[in-house]
Amino acid sequence: MRNWIPLIGQLQDYDLRQDMKSDLNAALIVAIMLIPQGMAYAMLAGLPPVMGLYASTVPIVIYALLGSSRQLAVGPVAMVSLLVYTGVSGIAEPGSEEYIAYVLLLALMVGVIQLLLGLLRLGAVTKYISHAVISGFTSAAAIIIAFSQMDSLLGTDLGESKNVFIIMIEAVQNIGNIQAETFFIGLASIVVLFLMKKYTPKIPGPLTVVVLSIAAVQLFNLEQTGVEVVGEIPGGLPGLTIPAMSADAVLTLLPIAVTISLIGFVESYAMAKVIATRERYAVHPDQELRALGAANIGTGFFSGFPVTGGFSRSAVNYDSGAKTGLAGMMTAVFVILTLLFFTSWFYYLPQAVLAAIIIVAVYGLIDVKEPKHLWQVKRADAVTLAVTFIATLAVGIEAGIITGVGFSLAVFLYRSGKPHMAELGYLESEGVYRNIKRFPQAKTDDDKLIIRIDAPIYFANMAYIEEQLRHYMLEHPRLTHVIFDFSSVNDIDAVAVDELEKWLDHHGSRGIRFYFVTVHGPVRDIFKRAGWDEKFAGSLYYRDLNEAHKAASSDS
Amino acid sequence: MRNWIPLIGQLQDYDLRQDMKSDLNAALIVAIMLIPQGMAYAMLAGLPPVMGLYASTVPIVIYALLGSSRQLAVGPVAMVSLLVYTGVSGIAEPGSEEYIAYVLLLALMVGVIQLLLGLLRLGAVTKYISHAVISGFTSAAAIIIAFSQMDSLLGTDLGESKNVFIIMIEAVQNIGNIQAETFFIGLASIVVLFLMKKYTPKIPGPLTVVVLSIAAVQLFNLEQTGVEVVGEIPGGLPGLTIPAMSADAVLTLLPIAVTISLIGFVESYAMAKVIATRERYAVHPDQELRALGAANIGTGFFSGFPVTGGFSRSAVNYDSGAKTGLAGMMTAVFVILTLLFFTSWFYYLPQAVLAAIIIVAVYGLIDVKEPKHLWQVKRADAVTLAVTFIATLAVGIEAGIITGVGFSLAVFLYRSGKPHMAELGYLESEGVYRNIKRFPQAKTDDDKLIIRIDAPIYFANMAYIEEQLRHYMLEHPRLTHVIFDFSSVNDIDAVAVDELEKWLDHHGSRGIRFYFVTVHGPVRDIFKRAGWDEKFAGSLYYRDLNEAHKAASSDS
Repeated sequence: MRNWIPLIGQLQDYDLRQDMKSDLNAALIVAIMLIPQGMAYAMLAGLPPVMGLYASTVPIVIYALLGSSRQLAVGPVAMVSLLVYTGVSGIAEPGSEEYIAYVLLLALMVGVIQLLLGLLRLGAVTKYISHAVISGFTSAAAIIIAFSQMDSLLGTDLGESKNVFIIMIEAVQNIGNIQAETFFIGLASIVVLFLMKKYTPKIPGPLTVVVLSIAAVQLFNLEQTGVEVVGEIPGGLPGLTIPAMSADAVLTLLPIAVTISLIGFVESYAMAKVIATRERYAVHPDQELRALGAANIGTGFFSGFPVTGGFSRSAVNYDSGAKTGLAGMMTAVFVILTLLFFTSWFYYLPQAVLAAIIIVAVYGLIDVKEPKHLWQVKRADAVTLAVTFIATLAVGIEAGIITGVGFSLAVFLYRSGKPHMAELGYLESEGVYRNIKRFPQAKTDDDKLIIRIDAPIYFANMAYIEEQLRHYMLEHPRLTHVIFDFSSVNDIDAVAVDELEKWLDHHGSRGIRFYFVTVHGPVRDIFKRAGWDEKFAGSLYYRDLNEAHKAASSDS
Repeated sequence: MRNWIPLIGQLQDYDLRQDMKSDLNAALIVAIMLIPQGMAYAMLAGLPPVMGLYASTVPIVIYALLGSSRQLAVGPVAMVSLLVYTGVSGIAEPGSEEYIAYVLLLALMVGVIQLLLGLLRLGAVTKYISHAVISGFTSAAAIIIAFSQMDSLLGTDLGESKNVFIIMIEAVQNIGNIQAETFFIGLASIVVLFLMKKYTPKIPGPLTVVVLSIAAVQLFNLEQTGVEVVGEIPGGLPGLTIPAMSADAVLTLLPIAVTISLIGFVESYAMAKVIATRERYAVHPDQELRALGAANIGTGFFSGFPVTGGFSRSAVNYDSGAKTGLAGMMTAVFVILTLLFFTSWFYYLPQAVLAAIIIVAVYGLIDVKEPKHLWQVKRADAVTLAVTFIATLAVGIEAGIITGVGFSLAVFLYRSGKPHMAELGYLESEGVYRNIKRFPQAKTDDDKLIIRIDAPIYFANMAYIEEQLRHYMLEHPRLTHVIFDFSSVNDIDAVAVDELEKWLDHHGSRGIRFYFVTVHGPVRDIFKRAGWDEKFAGSLYYRDLNEAHKAASSDS
């Protein structure tokens, strides 16, 4: 029971006065942040604002019960909302009933995929998404999201495209159509949000601009001058909806559902891990997948849209003192109270303010330090980040992540295909064997070659290794002994063993003798199964280079 | 000049009596084998038999000039012919003028792709096609090719499908329609070919069955009873043809052109390498690509179809004493003489005999030893072979190779994502540190943990390594010192360095001290660029485990 509902474990030593107070305080602050954000992200996803509130009720309660993180704040987030828009706007008109039906189905699919991955304990597949890919992808997505708010901010129609460059061109062409009051409200909100974030981080900026802008619109009758407002928000709780399923729709939505499942999980799990490490408790990837999956199934049945654990909201939840999942539960209660009693208050909220909230929220996701750092430490990783960033901006959000993952794995495969090799020499001062390129004073013999191969040997790098060996042997015309330092050969496959055997047979027949030093267990096993223990008895398994060198010297 | 036209180098010490005689003998034997095979493979590719002869003229001459192998016999081969059929039969009726036009364009495209790969020195990309994949793919393709000859062999129409299972069903359903004389001739040819291959390997089997069957058809007037014969073969040399190019056609043919380019090259290069190793000269992958590319461009302009170096024909060429590319040139001359004077001789050649020649030729490609051997040495490789084999048989020839390559790389990535790790203990008898699982008598300390990581560390395995470290640390509750044996960490990326640094910071703040032993050059460089040399000064770069253990003992 406690394995499946971690909340029970979290409440084991719950202090009803102290901890409850902390959780309640965090829940209130998160709710104040979540209500305008939820509406804004619903808008970003092409949905009516109220669905952002619906998505902040049932899923939060489900995650609070099932999640292994105590502080993760689940709900609508910018990246997933954008993915929903890009995935569904191609097959239905945003905001239409058909569009909403597809989004509900999509949420259900995301939930089922995450739940299945969690039940099958496949959370580890996400390890193949490099942090460099996530960083490049997130920065690009943040820019795309910010630009997608341009029309709400300018109060003018800029077409349907989410491509940054097209939006820029459209914005310049429509510079005469800018609605001045809207633009002013939006710009002022952005400035206020940035300033408050910097100078008064304790006061919730989104709530402030929401309250001020509603007051301003009412006071100056700005709605009459053309400022678009949120308008009527239906009060009351979300009803139970059954997503319409058709094989066709499921197939069409599958790629975007898989993308949202993985990206949503990766973003969420990364944040959960950061907090868990600081608080010294464990989060489990598969339990997290199950919890997020259940939450998304919940959002699909209760008029919401796909949710995940958000970066900034979780940070606020944690900083505000949340101790357990109860904080999440209470957040949901505050949202439900809003739905029951306060939706009419948001009638005059300008859409430009929601756009401003989104822009400021995603601005923090643009990471310029990481590419610099990666460039300094290892350029290939920085290039991976750049490729992902450019592909995401230029082609789109799904293509970007696929390109990034493909590229990062290709880099690894490319590197593993051209492994580092070194000729070793004896360094008398230290009594060890070292790479003669780094230690030119190391002593070598004319008739002996000591080679260290720094790689798992497999089908794709065996040809390269043979080629390098050929070069080394050309440099040693008087060669009679080859000593292989296998201390960094951590694996070998059958294809490579066969090739190596052919190579040994060929050179062995020309009178060259071989010595294998520090062969690790997994490689020993393969040698044994390939019959080398008999065939090459006496050549394998030297304990160290000194021993092999001595053996080679007495063999000559 | 000699770099681009290796034939010049080959003729440097050419003995006009001895070597010329050898080359001439080999050329004659290969031509006798090639003429019926060429016609058979053209039929397999859905083309008129004469195109098999055309493909055995110009391309052979071009390869003889440019190729770096002295004995490789280039020309039509079964696998490539089947790929041509599967690729083009979907868009045009086999044998039609439109079909031929597409095939010429395809040959040109294959040539251009290979030439470009060669000029860009990208021959190494084929190293990512594992020998296990090639073996599984070849066996399956051989079976598909053999079954594709079923209709010619039975003298009945079995539909268009090349799927083995569909052909089997069709054959059973059409058992009443078998043309008895055709089936007898085909079966007899197969038996004769097998027996001659075994008992009289010096006498060319294909020529024998061709001569005998032509005589039989004429003698017994079998054409009248319904035995399908090759019929009129136009005499004379191929004219210059300009392949019709359209962007649409190029795009449609691109996937099959890429497949043929790579598969053709891999098959050819593997054979060239085998012979070159025995004869102790070098073949260069990029030169081979350029030579095959030029040959395919030639076949596209002279009414042929895609060619490559064939396994069995090259073996015959080598065994018959071919010394240089001149043997290939002379083969082409024999084919040209046939085209000029002898095509009418083949009028009565039964198609069932060509089918028999194909079946016996591809039978030798089915490899049952390799899967057994791989299963014994490393099961993952045997599974790769099986997956490729099954995918090729069940889905098709292109899907098979793509599945195989994808699977073999996924296996490598999967293994690299769960690297081998070992806790080491001191083995007093030998004075070395060894894996305590393999050497349970090795001595360990309660407060010290010595860990060897057997892998390049990168983004995809860092989480697993952390997880394992967590387990090791739970097993050592009194731990104060962790010694990392980095002798088999042959590479590390920036993402993993960052994660490792966080881990060290976290555990360092809890009073645990770290020691890194035998860090190799490439990893040292990364540590340095990440600023570790200052931050972790004194913890890195211990020379060996003894030194680190001594340091740890004096630190406690």
